Amino acid sequence: MKVTRIDHVAIAVEDIDEALTFYRDALGLEVTTTDIEEGQGVVVAFMPVGDSELELIEPVDKGSGVARFLDKRGPGQHHICLEVDDLDAAMARLRAHDVELIDDEPYVGTGGRRIAFVHPRSSYGVLIELYETLPGDHLRRRLEDVGELRRRLLVRGRVAAAGTRGFLGGLRGRGDEEPE
Amino acid sequence: MKVTRIDHVAIAVEDIDEALTFYRDALGLEVTTTDIEEGQGVVVAFMPVGDSELELIEPVDKGSGVARFLDKRGPGQHHICLEVDDLDAAMARLRAHDVELIDDEPYVGTGGRRIAFVHPRSSYGVLIELYETLPGDHLRRRLEDVGELRRRLLVRGRVAAAGTRGFLGGLRGRGDEEPE
Repeated sequence: MKVTRIDHVAIAVEDIDEALTFYRDALGLEVTTTDIEEGQGVVVAFMPVGDSELELIEPVDKGSGVARFLDKRGPGQHHICLEVDDLDAAMARLRAHDVELIDDEPYVGTGGRRIAFVHPRSSYGVLIELYETLPGDHLRRRLEDVGELRRRLLVRGRVAAAGTRGFLGGLRGRGDEEPE
Repeated sequence: MKVTRIDHVAIAVEDIDEALTFYRDALGLEVTTTDIEEGQGVVVAFMPVGDSELELIEPVDKGSGVARFLDKRGPGQHHICLEVDDLDAAMARLRAHDVELIDDEPYVGTGGRRIAFVHPRSSYGVLIELYETLPGDHLRRRLEDVGELRRRLLVRGRVAAAGTRGFLGGLRGRGDEEPE
């Protein structure tokens, strides 16, 4: 298996619209995708940079894992997502090296993407997301107003459920072992 | 001006050789460059990932800025380096948006690279390095034993000087205002 690319670097912020005054207005990046990560109670915004992206993550649920990350450390880098050519092979190789994975099996995320997280205990403090590209992944763009996504997430009542699981808890169904 | 690429994502660690058991041995990345950053009292190792790199930073001087970062936050993501096509234009644009730059003028780093840091206060907690590519930048590869670089840095006595300035202090000559 091979790590082929930095897919994105994720930055946790209190308010995406506010953070965009730096990343979009000052630095000149373009927001091409905004979305809800339902299970985690967060709204996200992606900005392409070369062959990678920066992702802003804002917790709508103030009791979620990302909100706790912000309470503890303040805004800043949250995780790095690396693209691999074969996720099953990557997970097998990491296990063979005694690396602790947060997910026993690949988690199926937005758009059918298969992903798995490496526990920061094994990766020297860095929360690493691994994902395998799907055909047509580059076509998944959608762009909606962040405020509208925030409201939708709140209205759906999904925030309450996310609050019991947190950022990674929602992925693994075991919120009690969540890092950070 | 345009941000063209994530050049590298830097990870602060206590010991590069130890961290490589994960990043090189388990994840399968290749170390193509190791080096000393003399002014900062650190040894670094670069591992290409697609069109970007991961950089491990180990403080040889235990009183340096990176050592203090490790003391305070533990190992983890330290900064993101973004490549820009025109550093002077980038700095002018950021200043026009009231962004706080750590460097008043571009700092000339290893191999003649011109770089400037954005203060995390302006970039929502992320220490951002901006750099302008030089012709032949991709030819700058060197690869030496990390232990040998560590010893060389200690023997040269540069560690003592770096200790008074820290990671960014060495770049700006004003260690007292260093973030993190």
